[in-house]
Amino acid sequence: MRQRCGLWLMGARGSVATTAITGLLALRAGLVRPVGCVTEHLDMDHELLPAWDDLVVGGHDIVCTPLDKRAEHLAATGLISHTVLTAVADGLRAVDTELRGGYHPVSHTGSLASAAAQLAADIEEFRTRNDLARVVVVNVTSTEPPVPALPEHEDLDLLVEALNDPQRTVLPPSSVGAYAALRAGAPYVDFTPSPGIRLPALLELARRKGLPYAGADGKTGETLLRTVLAPMFTARALDVRSWAGTNLLGGGDGANLADPAQAKGKLESKARGLAQLLGEHVTAPLHIDNVANLGERKVAWDHVAFEGFLGAQMSLQFTWDGYDSALAAPLVLDLARLVSAAHADGQTGALSELAFFFKDPLGTDEHRFAEQTRMLADWAARLGQRG
Amino acid sequence: MRQRCGLWLMGARGSVATTAITGLLALRAGLVRPVGCVTEHLDMDHELLPAWDDLVVGGHDIVCTPLDKRAEHLAATGLISHTVLTAVADGLRAVDTELRGGYHPVSHTGSLASAAAQLAADIEEFRTRNDLARVVVVNVTSTEPPVPALPEHEDLDLLVEALNDPQRTVLPPSSVGAYAALRAGAPYVDFTPSPGIRLPALLELARRKGLPYAGADGKTGETLLRTVLAPMFTARALDVRSWAGTNLLGGGDGANLADPAQAKGKLESKARGLAQLLGEHVTAPLHIDNVANLGERKVAWDHVAFEGFLGAQMSLQFTWDGYDSALAAPLVLDLARLVSAAHADGQTGALSELAFFFKDPLGTDEHRFAEQTRMLADWAARLGQRG
Amino acid sequence: MRQRCGLWLMGARGSVATTAITGLLALRAGLVRPVGCVTEHLDMDHELLPAWDDLVVGGHDIVCTPLDKRAEHLAATGLISHTVLTAVADGLRAVDTELRGGYHPVSHTGSLASAAAQLAADIEEFRTRNDLARVVVVNVTSTEPPVPALPEHEDLDLLVEALNDPQRTVLPPSSVGAYAALRAGAPYVDFTPSPGIRLPALLELARRKGLPYAGADGKTGETLLRTVLAPMFTARALDVRSWAGTNLLGGGDGANLADPAQAKGKLESKARGLAQLLGEHVTAPLHIDNVANLGERKVAWDHVAFEGFLGAQMSLQFTWDGYDSALAAPLVLDLARLVSAAHADGQTGALSELAFFFKDPLGTDEHRFAEQTRMLADWAARLGQRG
Amino acid sequence: MRQRCGLWLMGARGSVATTAITGLLALRAGLVRPVGCVTEHLDMDHELLPAWDDLVVGGHDIVCTPLDKRAEHLAATGLISHTVLTAVADGLRAVDTELRGGYHPVSHTGSLASAAAQLAADIEEFRTRNDLARVVVVNVTSTEPPVPALPEHEDLDLLVEALNDPQRTVLPPSSVGAYAALRAGAPYVDFTPSPGIRLPALLELARRKGLPYAGADGKTGETLLRTVLAPMFTARALDVRSWAGTNLLGGGDGANLADPAQAKGKLESKARGLAQLLGEHVTAPLHIDNVANLGERKVAWDHVAFEGFLGAQMSLQFTWDGYDSALAAPLVLDLARLVSAAHADGQTGALSELAFFFKDPLGTDEHRFAEQTRMLADWAARLGQRG
Repeated sequence: MRQRCGLWLMGARGSVATTAITGLLALRAGLVRPVGCVTEHLDMDHELLPAWDDLVVGGHDIVCTPLDKRAEHLAATGLISHTVLTAVADGLRAVDTELRGGYHPVSHTGSLASAAAQLAADIEEFRTRNDLARVVVVNVTSTEPPVPALPEHEDLDLLVEALNDPQRTVLPPSSVGAYAALRAGAPYVDFTPSPGIRLPALLELARRKGLPYAGADGKTGETLLRTVLAPMFTARALDVRSWAGTNLLGGGDGANLADPAQAKGKLESKARGLAQLLGEHVTAPLHIDNVANLGERKVAWDHVAFEGFLGAQMSLQFTWDGYDSALAAPLVLDLARLVSAAHADGQTGALSELAFFFKDPLGTDEHRFAEQTRMLADWAARLGQRG
Repeated sequence: MRQRCGLWLMGARGSVATTAITGLLALRAGLVRPVGCVTEHLDMDHELLPAWDDLVVGGHDIVCTPLDKRAEHLAATGLISHTVLTAVADGLRAVDTELRGGYHPVSHTGSLASAAAQLAADIEEFRTRNDLARVVVVNVTSTEPPVPALPEHEDLDLLVEALNDPQRTVLPPSSVGAYAALRAGAPYVDFTPSPGIRLPALLELARRKGLPYAGADGKTGETLLRTVLAPMFTARALDVRSWAGTNLLGGGDGANLADPAQAKGKLESKARGLAQLLGEHVTAPLHIDNVANLGERKVAWDHVAFEGFLGAQMSLQFTWDGYDSALAAPLVLDLARLVSAAHADGQTGALSELAFFFKDPLGTDEHRFAEQTRMLADWAARLGQRG
Repeated sequence: MRQRCGLWLMGARGSVATTAITGLLALRAGLVRPVGCVTEHLDMDHELLPAWDDLVVGGHDIVCTPLDKRAEHLAATGLISHTVLTAVADGLRAVDTELRGGYHPVSHTGSLASAAAQLAADIEEFRTRNDLARVVVVNVTSTEPPVPALPEHEDLDLLVEALNDPQRTVLPPSSVGAYAALRAGAPYVDFTPSPGIRLPALLELARRKGLPYAGADGKTGETLLRTVLAPMFTARALDVRSWAGTNLLGGGDGANLADPAQAKGKLESKARGLAQLLGEHVTAPLHIDNVANLGERKVAWDHVAFEGFLGAQMSLQFTWDGYDSALAAPLVLDLARLVSAAHADGQTGALSELAFFFKDPLGTDEHRFAEQTRMLADWAARLGQRG
Repeated sequence: MRQRCGLWLMGARGSVATTAITGLLALRAGLVRPVGCVTEHLDMDHELLPAWDDLVVGGHDIVCTPLDKRAEHLAATGLISHTVLTAVADGLRAVDTELRGGYHPVSHTGSLASAAAQLAADIEEFRTRNDLARVVVVNVTSTEPPVPALPEHEDLDLLVEALNDPQRTVLPPSSVGAYAALRAGAPYVDFTPSPGIRLPALLELARRKGLPYAGADGKTGETLLRTVLAPMFTARALDVRSWAGTNLLGGGDGANLADPAQAKGKLESKARGLAQLLGEHVTAPLHIDNVANLGERKVAWDHVAFEGFLGAQMSLQFTWDGYDSALAAPLVLDLARLVSAAHADGQTGALSELAFFFKDPLGTDEHRFAEQTRMLADWAARLGQRG
């Protein structure tokens, strides 16, 4: 018999989370097709994946707007249809009862250890209350800037000690969340470029707890296309000279990333991939602009100038016009299913075979999308065949 | 010791051929880097490939403009630099002495068999005169329209009989050329969507002669991108609803393809790939326009409308602005080298592993570019390892 | 005191008409701002224009789907918000009572004269029933193909005679409608490229009846941009060599224009403008494709290749992504208001100063949008100042 | 009899100047058509304009590369054909003898007054030596950043005093050049966004000397299109919500503008126009990127998001791909001719009717290109008719 699996969303009232929850409810009700859900099309033993009915959602957030109000807002932008909104409103209100207040560095008093303990307790109570075989935690909070390196980030014991000191804030919120997830025995997924689990001390904790994790930064637009197109130029021995990009983002993401400090992590995450694919010599100016009137849409324009035979100067341009949350949300559900299956399978450490989903994959330098697709397919086909 | 290999170009005075010859001479002289030459980057035993110095060029054409004049014309469009033009002018005049008049249905008198015999004799004399181990024939003539099916196309014996009848014209010029190449014992490559070798009777002849062949229709622009991008939508379970395309072509190619009859083969060749990749249900209007002022450039615009999670309507557009001949020419050189190596290796029949180069690959239905890249790499790595 | 004015829509259940009616009701209710309504911003005596409350809508159509159902369909495509749909549903049902069955050549029995008499009677009864000072008829039916010339199109008396012959169909439906409108004493606007009023015999009838008219073919996308951009190239003495265009249309318009015969008028209407602006020597391939999945959206891509100083080859591309009906509908309301004011002002014949609204303006060859804007502004400012 | 007119270029060895000089020589020789030369098409008394043969070129520059070498460099980028280069080489060497070293703040010793005196003397000697009726000075040097306001910028007497103080540098190089031009009695044109003549004290000097001037910042690409397209949205009452832009520049301009301080003036100049046209409320992120491999080309992408009737969200994108110098150079020649004619006509002060040429026109707030075109045409038609 199948086991029920929890999906715990850090940032559960954000656009991506609200879209994922709304979509999950609509899928359960048979209102929509699973478009964009990769797991539905993988050639694997589908019994290993939690069914839509078996995914139970909870989460943390620092804002209090009820999910049904958030969904109404998304409906006004065209992302969710009125039919779906009406049909899932009760379901959203039910999920709301599983959401808890998140950790906020400004309002929190006491040590980070106490904050993390509370978060971990929330996750554990959710697992117990719902009789879940496991809970996968996915971080979909707002992007945080990179953090300066501290010795405590390199050493788990030092870190634990520092967390207990109420005077110190040695971890950014995303990493407090990752720490709490691991403490609660939950596999963890970083869907943002925030520090999250990517500090050596936290990776060590995952190792000690025998937990799998995956990340980082969901690949849903410009970077997806770059990792699809760049290998073409390489395969054809064409000499890419410049690859310029501009991203126009509405919604909360745009406002957040308009702050250069916040955007730094995202821009670095994007740049790493291109350099990995084409080398460091490519001129690659990259911008993220906040264009609030675009609502939930994001528009990316890339211009690639390349040289061919006999010095011919040629170019490729593309414009990607999408709904960020509609692109991200099904991948969040896919990741919950796949990481749940990996955990059930006894896998631990970085799930590098999930690089397919990420701009800056943990555990591998493979950025070529076709290779990532093959890695995912091979891994999924082998799942559950170890015994 | 390396053997010298002939490259016999059907359409040797066209833009693609002139660019390939000019580029080959420039590569030999060290004037340019081998940008766009795939074989330079393959992980394989490079001793198996003819070196630039070992490729000897000859060919047929029905026009008489000397190659150096054709190259001057291309230089005026910006495709060839003045420096290269000056440096290779003597070399072009030398190649000119290896070119022969091609078969033209209007001016030819006598049977097709006699026309083919003359073409074959030209190829054989070229091989003997230059002491070549083998000659690879590559068809880069203007695109021909599809031909109505005839019983003679299905049966080699019937075909041979009909070719001897001076009253009948059972083959289009490209197929007369393919027939002559095979008669001369030469491996054959179709770089155009013309009928060429793709009639069952000619494939049977290749089989009887134990010759390898490859084709069809060099993939250098819009279709290249389609076979790179379409698998991304599939891998991400996104639902492509329409894929519209417009191609603006200058040069001879544009004028030729402005004739709807001529364009039919090209359009069919392009459409087959998309349907194979995404299914038949995608709305896919496609146009080829003759825009003479673009010179040797071609501009392709594609608009892809796709549906994502919760019915979100999204789009991708791209514009590809390239020099057709600069994209095609290095692939012609690559194909000459690879097919030469395959022939030396004793391979026969359709070289399906060369699908990487073609819009409408012979011997396989694999259109996904990343898969084609892998097939080529695996095949090249194994070349020469059969003994 | 202001007078009430009728707006009689030929094609009253189509997308443009439904959007115009919905929008008018929403404007009256103060639910939306008059975005896209040019008359709101003209510097003129606004007392001369019918207020939103003073515009009474009726019309003909050959389909019977109620307006509220049509509006629901448009809401599903994202064109009309759920809020507006709910608020105007009663109003749409009220307008429905003013709609009458249109003339259809297949189902009609009897002479065209009898058909026209019925249409004219409908308009007259509408005017009387609603106590309207005047009724402006606007043709927003589906595009018809051009018609072969007949002697009856040149001579009003011959035409009237032929209309009485039940065996003859000397006019296409759009011209039957125009004839009926004029018979009913109504000013007439052609918002489509159909023949409509543009036959000399009908223009003569308008003259005899002392009626103003305007047209043809609402300018809402690609052509709007062309008439904005082409004068820039002229003013800067840049040499446009080619101007290629592709239009992707969903909705009923796309399906209708996918038929090459139907599209002919639209393509000719578009081409006339460009030739007028830049001369006949510009290569200008133009396509209209039916892409049903785009729903009410239309996407146009234009590529302009131009030469500058010292022969420099340069280009401009644009992509216009709009909702056809949202662009057209406010112009229909504007035209009703302006033509009503012109009629009240005693103007007759072609209202060439309304060229601003049309791809193929009646009464003038002025296609430059900035000049058209000035002509409209000057005309509007002078309205009502003749007395 | 016509009078000969000098064109003195500040920055005479830059790309724009080299292209202008090369083009002028090619026009004189009848090698090229005057494409991009606006004055050739104005409806005016052409006797008032210096003929190509009557324009004598001199100038300042701080670099020493001979003009023929600069032109060779431009030929390598495709901007100048080999044929033209060969034909004008002697002419370029002749112009070289009229070029003088410019003022450079680092290498100059002594007061700014002495620097300006030397520049003015160079211009006066050029006028005398060549027996010129007048000399028009055009600033095409690299863009300078905005300067902090000083009291001396507001008061000519204070300025003159400060210029004599060898310890002070109260003017940036462009303004030293403008000061020298005015001292030499030469009309002055600012083709860049540098401070140049735009300080009140310098405008006062122009007034006292009775000289005309024009500027600022040649409008040749993205801003040209913005001033063409923005009035369309206004005329159609469409609500522009955001207008995002990215500029990719190669050549020296790109490198110069990659420095945020240098780019500030250019970005401000661009932003002023859009705000003037559409209001301050439009979100308008704007970037200039240095992409050296583009050579002399510049590529601009703009994305305009606008709202229409009933809240419909629509967009326009364009990509402009041009050779910056080929767009600018003919305008420099046009300005020399027109400002010469204005000077001969006795006009003084800001020539606001030349707004057509500039991003940030002096003497007017009119940014609408069609209005600017009309202003220029009216002004040119009236030239010479005052007597």
